[in-house]
Amino acid sequence: MVERDERELVRTLAQLLGRRAAAQIGDDVATLDLESGRYAVTVDSQIAGVHFPGDLDAATLARRLLAVNLSDLAAAGIDPALEIFGLCTLAAPRDFDHRRFFAALGTAAETSGLVIVGGDLAACPTLTTTLTLIGHYGAGTRPLLRSRAREGDGLWLGGTIGESALGRHLLAAGARWTPGGAHLDGLPAGSWPGAESAIRRHLCPRPQMALGHWLAQRPRAAALDLSDGLALDLHRLLDASGVAAQLVAEELPIPTSVFDLAPQLDLEPLDLALSGGEDYVLLFALPEGEEPPADFQAHSIGRVVPGRGATLAQGGNWRQLPAVGWDHLVDSGP
Amino acid sequence: MVERDERELVRTLAQLLGRRAAAQIGDDVATLDLESGRYAVTVDSQIAGVHFPGDLDAATLARRLLAVNLSDLAAAGIDPALEIFGLCTLAAPRDFDHRRFFAALGTAAETSGLVIVGGDLAACPTLTTTLTLIGHYGAGTRPLLRSRAREGDGLWLGGTIGESALGRHLLAAGARWTPGGAHLDGLPAGSWPGAESAIRRHLCPRPQMALGHWLAQRPRAAALDLSDGLALDLHRLLDASGVAAQLVAEELPIPTSVFDLAPQLDLEPLDLALSGGEDYVLLFALPEGEEPPADFQAHSIGRVVPGRGATLAQGGNWRQLPAVGWDHLVDSGP
Repeated sequence: MVERDERELVRTLAQLLGRRAAAQIGDDVATLDLESGRYAVTVDSQIAGVHFPGDLDAATLARRLLAVNLSDLAAAGIDPALEIFGLCTLAAPRDFDHRRFFAALGTAAETSGLVIVGGDLAACPTLTTTLTLIGHYGAGTRPLLRSRAREGDGLWLGGTIGESALGRHLLAAGARWTPGGAHLDGLPAGSWPGAESAIRRHLCPRPQMALGHWLAQRPRAAALDLSDGLALDLHRLLDASGVAAQLVAEELPIPTSVFDLAPQLDLEPLDLALSGGEDYVLLFALPEGEEPPADFQAHSIGRVVPGRGATLAQGGNWRQLPAVGWDHLVDSGP
Repeated sequence: MVERDERELVRTLAQLLGRRAAAQIGDDVATLDLESGRYAVTVDSQIAGVHFPGDLDAATLARRLLAVNLSDLAAAGIDPALEIFGLCTLAAPRDFDHRRFFAALGTAAETSGLVIVGGDLAACPTLTTTLTLIGHYGAGTRPLLRSRAREGDGLWLGGTIGESALGRHLLAAGARWTPGGAHLDGLPAGSWPGAESAIRRHLCPRPQMALGHWLAQRPRAAALDLSDGLALDLHRLLDASGVAAQLVAEELPIPTSVFDLAPQLDLEPLDLALSGGEDYVLLFALPEGEEPPADFQAHSIGRVVPGRGATLAQGGNWRQLPAVGWDHLVDSGP
């Protein structure tokens, strides 16, 4: 950081965030002219050592921050074609590459139809960044809620699970990530097929905006995004809806790399899939007979039944699925 | 913290934030039904060791977080009678008193017509909290900008300066704050009249919402809130407006406690007033002849002249006032 002070730095960074952002940033508040309607607002933090490795590349961190926050808006069903507004705080050690972070944030924001309109900078020994997003539902879209699942519904996942947690454990076990890709030479000797993909999946999740918006336009659907693992987040959906669920372990969409690599790290593949967390795919319920378009590559994983809680069949035996998952207040990252 | 996990904690905290907040919090996004119009959005962080002492009482921290953020909305001129929405992130060590923090935030928010609609919790060794606020200008109010000062304007301060920085230095010198008040027995032997008031001023600033809204309804006014000290923030207003200013040191509203106590801490009273920072009063320019109502207890401090930069007369001698102030990226708190 060569800027003389915050004032110069803010000016530089506003340029990196794009022309429209630059026009807003600099005053202590941003001014938004909003149409009347329904908006979704959300905020999420990324903290070194909790949500990501402390030595993570600044550009990758910026993209991860945005993706994790957009995933919340995806689960709310906002219209991704409408403009989204963002405010970013960054508290970073003195040697942090602010330019690289904001250049990547600006590029990723532009791709997502998002304008960064404000923020706050500070020096802090623990790298901490937050993003607040304001999205517009648009006409004809009702907020997608987790409370609308009903008996008989099918349960679906918008993508695979367990791979992100595998990526986190690979980083903890010695793998490294640079902007060029994953470096596996720090891992124990052996074969690590699919490790790079898992690390990429962990660090660079892909928010399912189109799927969320499609769901919000159904007559009835329930959804949330998996941040803390299927077991815990499923219970959130079930509790909010007042229903129970039955799943079959063998039908869960778990990549082969999770089965191949988890044992090498002394981990259970099914544990990673159920409670590893940070999958950032949508979990949703649709009335029986309704199916998401094939383009979304969603997976049917079970069905909604009367009662409370969730049961899982594994090898033909049914057991209770406990509401246990990744907890940012209790667990620590790699 | 006795809650089993984040899920239970969030439920408990939502109750502390009030009935309306509790209805929103729990989903990953909050839904806002907004009227069309102009909104002010802002975010600010409070970080232990940077913005406040690491052992600060959790309730005082919550009130300070809210006050500092509201001060930005005050400087924007929003209508404080209209509802304000807030999102709060808190990343705290495991022994932090979450209940005390959110109970105080809820009470202070209610007093300010603010509803906390969302947030994010995480564990973090460095106590860090952010607040995003969304305020509505309301009909007939234009955003108050720093760029509207013109030659001939009078320059005003909404309150006194230097006392907050004095309070920060008193804390660094050994004074302590508890919810009951200041404790001065850790300070060097001597007499410390006004020390408690200075510490309170530092920790519990009072955002000037009514003054900001009055200014925003003038035909023309320029304003910002003093967060980094008069010298630096004045230059921000002048640079944005393309004008210069003349001030007289002897006319600056500096409490007698600053003159009495600063020398005991080997500090220059005028340095504290000009660049100590965190005063959180409004600095504003009004056309010649216009005066704020006496109720606001504002102080005339100089005038706007053609040119660039600022000059200060002290003892009849004029000198350049450099744009130097409290910089959260460079300076560290006590």
